[in-house]
Amino acid sequence: MAPSNWRTYLVTQASLSAGRSTAEIAREAIAGGVDAIQLREKDTDARTRYELGRELREMTADAGVDLVVNDRLDIAQAIDADGVHVGQSDLPVAVARDLLGPDAIVGCSTSTVAEARQAEADGADYLGVGSVYGTTSKRVAEHKDGIGPERVAEITDAVSIPVVGIGGITDDNAGPVADAGAIGVAVISEITAADDPQAATQALSAALEAPTQSPSNTEGQP
Amino acid sequence: MAPSNWRTYLVTQASLSAGRSTAEIAREAIAGGVDAIQLREKDTDARTRYELGRELREMTADAGVDLVVNDRLDIAQAIDADGVHVGQSDLPVAVARDLLGPDAIVGCSTSTVAEARQAEADGADYLGVGSVYGTTSKRVAEHKDGIGPERVAEITDAVSIPVVGIGGITDDNAGPVADAGAIGVAVISEITAADDPQAATQALSAALEAPTQSPSNTEGQP
Repeated sequence: MAPSNWRTYLVTQASLSAGRSTAEIAREAIAGGVDAIQLREKDTDARTRYELGRELREMTADAGVDLVVNDRLDIAQAIDADGVHVGQSDLPVAVARDLLGPDAIVGCSTSTVAEARQAEADGADYLGVGSVYGTTSKRVAEHKDGIGPERVAEITDAVSIPVVGIGGITDDNAGPVADAGAIGVAVISEITAADDPQAATQALSAALEAPTQSPSNTEGQP
Repeated sequence: MAPSNWRTYLVTQASLSAGRSTAEIAREAIAGGVDAIQLREKDTDARTRYELGRELREMTADAGVDLVVNDRLDIAQAIDADGVHVGQSDLPVAVARDLLGPDAIVGCSTSTVAEARQAEADGADYLGVGSVYGTTSKRVAEHKDGIGPERVAEITDAVSIPVVGIGGITDDNAGPVADAGAIGVAVISEITAADDPQAATQALSAALEAPTQSPSNTEGQP
């Protein structure tokens, strides 16, 4: 698979999983049809991430799901991940591309058009754009702490690489992110904290497929 | 240079430098004849460590001083460091050796004979052994929080790769570490927090060269 085919994307964070292991959450997300998983786990040491990464690599490879590692190029190499996801405070995109080669997936977190253009110019394969709604909002209208779908649209207009929206996205508010030109959505809590992570993944996927019930869509209907 | 030639070894930590930059401390340590520098800076993000690492690489290369990076193999690769130093919670020594190749320096933190033997078997080039005296003690007799020179001697007897002592080492207590078979000593505070880091480096080096004034040495004198 390639980023251009991603719809649902799980970013792992053990601290939000209500006691379940990250591997367990990942397994359920895979059963629910997730397209990509990012090994994040910012609070754990490298050895723990490496061991977890090996476990995720085995299950994602079997399922044909892409696996990228947040920040650490070395862990990505060590577990034979498909690539990395770097933020603005991590190693530069150009360095990641240089060290990992042309076949690795290199993604970058951006929140402005300028950052997005720079990441594309430096060789990023996709962008994680956000925080779209902030991280706790449940309603589209409450994105005062996020950049909102409008900014996502500005960014998707400005670059030609795939964009994944991230930040406070749920099955209720995913539609406008897709309408803004994002090819998919990345979530932590929506899957990780769900009672049923498999069902949550499926609901997110369904929300992206459904036509958005906006006035402009319904106006022209008979 | 190779680890077998190291005597004084600076581990960087900006938070202990009394407002001076890590590059400034490193420059003074180099002027004082330091043999190796480890880019540590655990509290900073990857981008900052990368930028600092590039600066340290330039000055260490000019001076013929070895540069290793703590924990992050990717930053070591990105700045063309001589190698890495990994702890028991970092990527395994065998993974570092595999990813960085046979020419890279791979060091490992160990505090027991078992860990030391494992690291040697996995391909480590040298060991950082400690904490010898704990981290704040100023006297040899006060190493109740450290493993002490006795354990250093047990480890140097058990392996054939070079051992560098670390943890609470000063010019006052470095002698017994060398007597225990360590080829050198690694310090953070002793150089970083010193009023004159260059002089502190020289004093440490001198302490390693001086014969230890132990009873067994003086007894035989006329």
